[in-house]
Amino acid sequence: MATQKNRHIVIIGCGFGGLEAAKALRKAPVDITLIDRSNHHLFQPLLYQVATAGLAAPAIAAPIRNLFRKQHNVTTLLGDVIAIDATAQTITLESSSATASKVSYDHLIVAAGATHSYFGNDGWEQFAPGLKTLGDALELRKRILFAFEAAERETDSVLREALLTFVVIGAGPTGVEMAGTLAEIARHTLPGEFRSIDPSSARVLLVEGGPRVLQAMPADLSEKALKQLEKLGVQVMLGCKVTGIDADGISVDHTDGTTTSNRIQSKTVVWAAGVAASPLGKQLADTTACSIDRAGRVVVLPDLSVPGFASISVVGDMAAAKSHHRGLETSVPGVSPAAKQMGRCAAANIVLRLQGKPTQAFRYMDYGNLATIGRNAAVVDLTSPLGHFKFSGYFAWLFWLFAHIYFLIGFRNRFVVLLDWVSAYLSFTRHARVVVGSASANSAAKPQL
Amino acid sequence: MATQKNRHIVIIGCGFGGLEAAKALRKAPVDITLIDRSNHHLFQPLLYQVATAGLAAPAIAAPIRNLFRKQHNVTTLLGDVIAIDATAQTITLESSSATASKVSYDHLIVAAGATHSYFGNDGWEQFAPGLKTLGDALELRKRILFAFEAAERETDSVLREALLTFVVIGAGPTGVEMAGTLAEIARHTLPGEFRSIDPSSARVLLVEGGPRVLQAMPADLSEKALKQLEKLGVQVMLGCKVTGIDADGISVDHTDGTTTSNRIQSKTVVWAAGVAASPLGKQLADTTACSIDRAGRVVVLPDLSVPGFASISVVGDMAAAKSHHRGLETSVPGVSPAAKQMGRCAAANIVLRLQGKPTQAFRYMDYGNLATIGRNAAVVDLTSPLGHFKFSGYFAWLFWLFAHIYFLIGFRNRFVVLLDWVSAYLSFTRHARVVVGSASANSAAKPQL
Repeated sequence: MATQKNRHIVIIGCGFGGLEAAKALRKAPVDITLIDRSNHHLFQPLLYQVATAGLAAPAIAAPIRNLFRKQHNVTTLLGDVIAIDATAQTITLESSSATASKVSYDHLIVAAGATHSYFGNDGWEQFAPGLKTLGDALELRKRILFAFEAAERETDSVLREALLTFVVIGAGPTGVEMAGTLAEIARHTLPGEFRSIDPSSARVLLVEGGPRVLQAMPADLSEKALKQLEKLGVQVMLGCKVTGIDADGISVDHTDGTTTSNRIQSKTVVWAAGVAASPLGKQLADTTACSIDRAGRVVVLPDLSVPGFASISVVGDMAAAKSHHRGLETSVPGVSPAAKQMGRCAAANIVLRLQGKPTQAFRYMDYGNLATIGRNAAVVDLTSPLGHFKFSGYFAWLFWLFAHIYFLIGFRNRFVVLLDWVSAYLSFTRHARVVVGSASANSAAKPQL
Repeated sequence: MATQKNRHIVIIGCGFGGLEAAKALRKAPVDITLIDRSNHHLFQPLLYQVATAGLAAPAIAAPIRNLFRKQHNVTTLLGDVIAIDATAQTITLESSSATASKVSYDHLIVAAGATHSYFGNDGWEQFAPGLKTLGDALELRKRILFAFEAAERETDSVLREALLTFVVIGAGPTGVEMAGTLAEIARHTLPGEFRSIDPSSARVLLVEGGPRVLQAMPADLSEKALKQLEKLGVQVMLGCKVTGIDADGISVDHTDGTTTSNRIQSKTVVWAAGVAASPLGKQLADTTACSIDRAGRVVVLPDLSVPGFASISVVGDMAAAKSHHRGLETSVPGVSPAAKQMGRCAAANIVLRLQGKPTQAFRYMDYGNLATIGRNAAVVDLTSPLGHFKFSGYFAWLFWLFAHIYFLIGFRNRFVVLLDWVSAYLSFTRHARVVVGSASANSAAKPQL
């Protein structure tokens, strides 16, 4: 084996799926090229804390090539994959020079994740940005903090009220976390610092099309999360479909049709409603004729490979995968533990193929769900070998906190995040209330000043 | 006094000068409006550490309104001052709405600081950004880190060498710090993380028009700083005048005319050579007919007021001020201790005027100079009541470190910065190696990929 040239594995994306796949191949006789558009692995579950000024961006991001410093079979490349050719077994990187743009592979793992989806209303994005990257988080931080700043300067009471109205669309985990934290900022962090406005008079609305918040959770935990949100001062609007978003607010229809449409004046709208797979899903469909579902995800075989192309695996949020256990098939949710498990499964199947053995079907181990709502408030739904546990409130919040610290990459990041949290908890302040750029620097995102 | 309406003091800019002025007025019977274009006070002496990925942006920035939370006579406004009318005693804020754009004052303190100056070659800015704001620092961080990334992908050896050549123009404190830290990154932080390139082969050039580095320092300390820079691997080019900067490098002439002009191929150029006062200096000259010097600074009276307009003071980097002591006049340098002292002096003179007393002339207390060069290397030139002290090397570096920690605002920032430094010192890593945005997101600043 040592005299033979190693197989070349290309991994696109270093989110949870790509990262785990590369790590799982550390002892395999392969050469790995790991390609990402950004220079860091992002701990997305805490991204809302960067957006809400609780953490600095580097606290939840780790430089990819530093993570693989000691794994010598990994070469990290910063680059944007713009094409995949499944027949020639090459990928193309965007390049401004003529050189070094094509990379060939023996096996390809596509783990490029998901992006926001506005369900066909792409014009909404500029008024209601989503939360997927550090750039998104810093843009939201700017909009949120500058809305309070603009309100302090505004003399027109109607405009001032619109500046102090924050709308979060979508009551999944991200939406619930954003709404709860926004309420905390308005009620606890900012009061006392303004002279013309009372930040605690700000309204935080959480708009959800479905009948309850956190629909992946059991109904009783949704009910508890709703109560905790309302206690924090969040106004939750269930069964409301958004029909329009513009620079001045949103329009909603009640899904039961009982009331007429409503208009909410707001200068700060956060989109936490829909996700779609990376456009590379479409690329894959073009080159392999595979199926993609409505969210743009690639329909994969049980072993996570693409039908007809055993040399390509798709993992994480890009994959429409099924979990296989005791003859049952269940859909795999788009959550980080699933992405990690898929990354490991794809890596294991590559090793099996190299050994001439049959690949194994993916089985998703569901350890449950947890979501935080705000200060001292969270809901936890655990599945463990010891049984099923559901709890909420203070202990759920502590559990959420330590689980996230545990899964954060790198000792120093864990320590810094813990320090920030302890200090924020005790002082009610938020340490990253810093907006890069000036009042007039960014005209596109400029609030009404 | 309590029944009388308080005088209204407007302060433009919350750098060191504006911050100190506002703090010094905390017990005065005045209402203060403090206006800044950004939402934070920036500890500029450590900005180069954000640019070189040693610190996260929020570690050296403090939200202005949080700093004045308990000083109830201060109202903070985020805004961009676009006009001053010295006769009507009003300033105008940029505004997208028709309301709330003019603010009148009884006394105005202008402390808007300085910006880069390219000595008439404004076209150089895009190729050689300077370092004044957090935005500048993050842009430089991106260019520096992405240059190594692009080099790892580059197959053309000439281009690769240009990507691994870093040029710093200007050997004042910022230039010396940048060059020393760049050398440290190349020699100590990045080696072992790349597979195609050897980061320690990177060249760091420090180009200076004058005959020595750190010209504000005594000549023997300049000599020591030069030796320390060279020991770190920085190639120092003294007596070199930059004659051109473009996307591919710079052109230099030796000032003694002995050699022909040189061309240096480099993809990453940092401008640390020239500063000019904020354009508000020109505004003031237009409305008060005051003089401005070649750097755009306002020539002020001994009490820091504008000739003919006792209601306007100019402090910090915007002021061409003289220090008055025992009948001697000396020029005040553009350093942060001078800005702080001017801010306090202008505040004291406002109080004296309110009391109907004559104002006092500004006297600059020079405590000396210090500059760091890199790991274990710094030079210190202290003037104290106990005498004059000059030292360099490890103890100078420790002195520099604790002086900067001491002057950093806020306990937590001090602690986080110290933690980052201790951990960076022990591990040779840098924790903020995170670039927001992707390989292809910013086409203007995109490196050759």
